[in-house]
Amino acid sequence: MDTPAFQDFYPDDAGQCYGCGRFNARGHRLRTRWDGDETVTRFTPEPFHTAVPGVVYGGLLASLVDCHGTGSAAGAGYRAEGREPGTEPPLRYVTAALRVEYLKPTPLGPELEIRGRILEVKGRKVVVAVRVLCGGVETVRGEVIAVRMPEGMVAKGPAAAS
Amino acid sequence: MDTPAFQDFYPDDAGQCYGCGRFNARGHRLRTRWDGDETVTRFTPEPFHTAVPGVVYGGLLASLVDCHGTGSAAGAGYRAEGREPGTEPPLRYVTAALRVEYLKPTPLGPELEIRGRILEVKGRKVVVAVRVLCGGVETVRGEVIAVRMPEGMVAKGPAAAS
Repeated sequence: MDTPAFQDFYPDDAGQCYGCGRFNARGHRLRTRWDGDETVTRFTPEPFHTAVPGVVYGGLLASLVDCHGTGSAAGAGYRAEGREPGTEPPLRYVTAALRVEYLKPTPLGPELEIRGRILEVKGRKVVVAVRVLCGGVETVRGEVIAVRMPEGMVAKGPAAAS
Repeated sequence: MDTPAFQDFYPDDAGQCYGCGRFNARGHRLRTRWDGDETVTRFTPEPFHTAVPGVVYGGLLASLVDCHGTGSAAGAGYRAEGREPGTEPPLRYVTAALRVEYLKPTPLGPELEIRGRILEVKGRKVVVAVRVLCGGVETVRGEVIAVRMPEGMVAKGPAAAS
């Protein structure tokens, strides 16, 4: 399965994100797609992404929740406008707020599955519920409030959100 | 100023954390200290820690909030027990929940200051309010609920939290 991901359609200047930018060679390059009404991203942490031995670092898990959330928001934005990713104008969201609950230790080693459910699409705002699963077991639960990046934020430099 | 940091007293096996472990050569190696009644950590993001050009990646900022929170919790734990870091038993906290609000873009380049305020110390739980400042301007606000790592979690492998 190598269908395009939402991040493949980010404008070039918005493709530098450490979490999900396709041009960031040092980053995680997350790729998010629809799976029915949910969104899914897969990611295998590196051996050095450790919290205590054998457990995935919580900051990395927060990053996965964050970028899966903004990627899912882009997908939801296109769907709400009744058009496909790749059509103009491109949609790119940034995070306004992030909440992460660590339900149990996430084992370090296996590929993780990050799944999103769109809770709300309202104007420029999208709210996404996110789960991280390891071997089918939910270890992390989170929520992302994403807002559409203002036009020209990249070209003009930082203007409205992180 | 190179006084010891709370993380310098983590047990060796708990010093592998990607965010704050002194033995993780690939990690951020955050170091947290008291500054009066607040805690402080300083960190300069790398050029590749980008969200959009010129702006620090939100997942990294979440990591800074996270590890500054658990480090601050260790300091607060020692203080609540009326003893100094370095006395036995060592204290190490893990994150149960994390909340991050991105108030404005955090410029990429300058050193960041991460400051914590202890909101609650109750049994094994410590709640820390965290701010990230760039050039004295608050760009991120967060809260960390940290819980003391169960004895033997490291030796026995993952047991209770991320």
